[in-house]
Amino acid sequence: MSFEITATDGEARAGVLHTSHGDVPTPAFMPVGTKATVKGLDPVRLRELGTTILLANTYHLHFRPGAELIEELGGLHAFMAWDGPILTDSGGFQVFSLRDTISAVDEDGVTFRSVYDGQPARLTPELAADVQRRLGSDVAMCLDVCPPADVSRPELELATETTTRWAERQLAAPRAEGQLLFAVAQGGNDRDLRRRSIEELAALGFDGLALGGLSVGEERGAMLETVSWSAPLLPADRPRYFMGIGDPAGILEVVARGIDMFDCVLPTRLGRTGSALTWEGRLNLRNARFARDREPLDEDCPCSACSRFSRAYLRHLVNQQELLGLILLSEHNVRFLLDLTAGARAAIERGELAAYKAAALHRLEQATAAPGQEVSRG
Amino acid sequence: MSFEITATDGEARAGVLHTSHGDVPTPAFMPVGTKATVKGLDPVRLRELGTTILLANTYHLHFRPGAELIEELGGLHAFMAWDGPILTDSGGFQVFSLRDTISAVDEDGVTFRSVYDGQPARLTPELAADVQRRLGSDVAMCLDVCPPADVSRPELELATETTTRWAERQLAAPRAEGQLLFAVAQGGNDRDLRRRSIEELAALGFDGLALGGLSVGEERGAMLETVSWSAPLLPADRPRYFMGIGDPAGILEVVARGIDMFDCVLPTRLGRTGSALTWEGRLNLRNARFARDREPLDEDCPCSACSRFSRAYLRHLVNQQELLGLILLSEHNVRFLLDLTAGARAAIERGELAAYKAAALHRLEQATAAPGQEVSRG
Repeated sequence: MSFEITATDGEARAGVLHTSHGDVPTPAFMPVGTKATVKGLDPVRLRELGTTILLANTYHLHFRPGAELIEELGGLHAFMAWDGPILTDSGGFQVFSLRDTISAVDEDGVTFRSVYDGQPARLTPELAADVQRRLGSDVAMCLDVCPPADVSRPELELATETTTRWAERQLAAPRAEGQLLFAVAQGGNDRDLRRRSIEELAALGFDGLALGGLSVGEERGAMLETVSWSAPLLPADRPRYFMGIGDPAGILEVVARGIDMFDCVLPTRLGRTGSALTWEGRLNLRNARFARDREPLDEDCPCSACSRFSRAYLRHLVNQQELLGLILLSEHNVRFLLDLTAGARAAIERGELAAYKAAALHRLEQATAAPGQEVSRG
Repeated sequence: MSFEITATDGEARAGVLHTSHGDVPTPAFMPVGTKATVKGLDPVRLRELGTTILLANTYHLHFRPGAELIEELGGLHAFMAWDGPILTDSGGFQVFSLRDTISAVDEDGVTFRSVYDGQPARLTPELAADVQRRLGSDVAMCLDVCPPADVSRPELELATETTTRWAERQLAAPRAEGQLLFAVAQGGNDRDLRRRSIEELAALGFDGLALGGLSVGEERGAMLETVSWSAPLLPADRPRYFMGIGDPAGILEVVARGIDMFDCVLPTRLGRTGSALTWEGRLNLRNARFARDREPLDEDCPCSACSRFSRAYLRHLVNQQELLGLILLSEHNVRFLLDLTAGARAAIERGELAAYKAAALHRLEQATAAPGQEVSRG
């Protein structure tokens, strides 16, 4: 088996995902390397920050620079000089979240216009498999139909059924050697459809399952409610992936509900816009109150930015639009989420996740800065 | 003495500049940390690349975030977490190169408008001294009057004379503990004025001298001609600084003429615009010919970009405007110039600079890429 559970604590689990490029302790936060680079972060630094697995985007790499080129250059690991595990999504999320670019969804696949040049393009389960095979990721994802949150019941049912048929086709397509394949369960907040989707996909025998269609434009409470009742429906012996969550409170909430893997562009996106994730909340370094602040971003953070630089210096860099500011904030933010996740894993192993989560949420809620509750994916 | 010469080879010299933050082997290329950061490069990486001394800009730091703030936070070294030597310019170059912003140059100083907010500002030798004292740089520079290349003889004479009087005033002003002070000789390409400027400044007893007023809008041949006859006029026992040169051929040419220190924004500016300095010439990574190129930027370069990444990957990053591309190209370019300079120093020690220079220029001239002759300063 590619996955083993080493401890449980309520619904939460600690485990290890075995991949061709090494083991991933779970729960695992995956920094997002959209275009074969986690924005602003050298792979060596990513490793130093504690990254155990990266996510890369099939949609973007398919169009730029193209999976054939990456394959020719030795695959995604060699191309981006990251020798650790990589999960690739199917490209479906980008297609379905850029809804204006879709011209048709049929039984065979989805037709849309590329965001790069507006040209007509097509994505099918077979192409999603082929692109990910060429990229050579450690974990590939099945193409799913991801409907909008306000879709009608008949449309949601069709999307869910099509998702299963597409997953079955992708399962039959060639994969890279040792490549794991996860499927994405749909069904929205509809218990019957969600249960049916999970049961059908679980029966097909994927290496892991994701809960899809929940993170986009979803209200946080309803989303967590769905995770609460649907996570226990997922096969207990396989990894459970929740796509697109990466704020501190959100990570704690889904981990407590039994999710093993999650990803988000939040830490690097916040870094590029001059904000830091801290135990004092989300700090916008542009704020004048940091102008003479000698303190590090977070006094408890051991990252290289916090051990060397004051908020005043980082504010100066951000205000002057200096690249180093974006880099250091991105490094800190990724480290903050990796450390939070590692702390949750250790708490599960001690059987103390509830206390860890409560203490962390209490600290975050006490924060004087702007509220840090947000879902972001890209 | 703060400077000692360890070897000579024709006009060229190898030496060591002793500063409060360590020794600088010369000839030395100084990467430019304009606003207390070398654009895109972490101080730890700078050290790994072989940087021995940085330059920072008094003009920019005076306005943003202000020298008082930097002093309050422990000085420039602590502020930017660089514990090696730092040279600060006087601010004069920025003022005089932004000529449209100058409203008056008088005996006391220069009045201009800040590029940050258009507000009236004033720079005097005493303020240049005070700002650099607060910054706490290892080497401070005297404020000089830097006239345009096409200035009339009487104006050039006045600029040269004023420069000496300003240097004398700055020499009398308080400095940071252990801070060295270099003066800037003016005189354009006029032999009498240049000689007089050098002699007057040398007599005042500065720790080093720079050849000013030559690198801006100057034709390369005329500039080198002036360096050829004026460098030998500079005190032999003190470091000689040529401001704003950093292309490979230019470095070799001024080193051969007896220059010990030089700086340029070229490597980081080229990096940010997607170009690399190599022994094949200057490569524009946007060029389609690199799309499938498996080779490193430079096959002889041991830098971390060249040891890990293909031109094809770097081209992908540059084309997608990914921060990592700019970072890696900047790192490589700085390393390329530091290695070239270290090679020149070793050649001087062996008495083989002429052969080193000829071989290097031959390689650069054979380059198939765009010509690499350029002077840049900022």
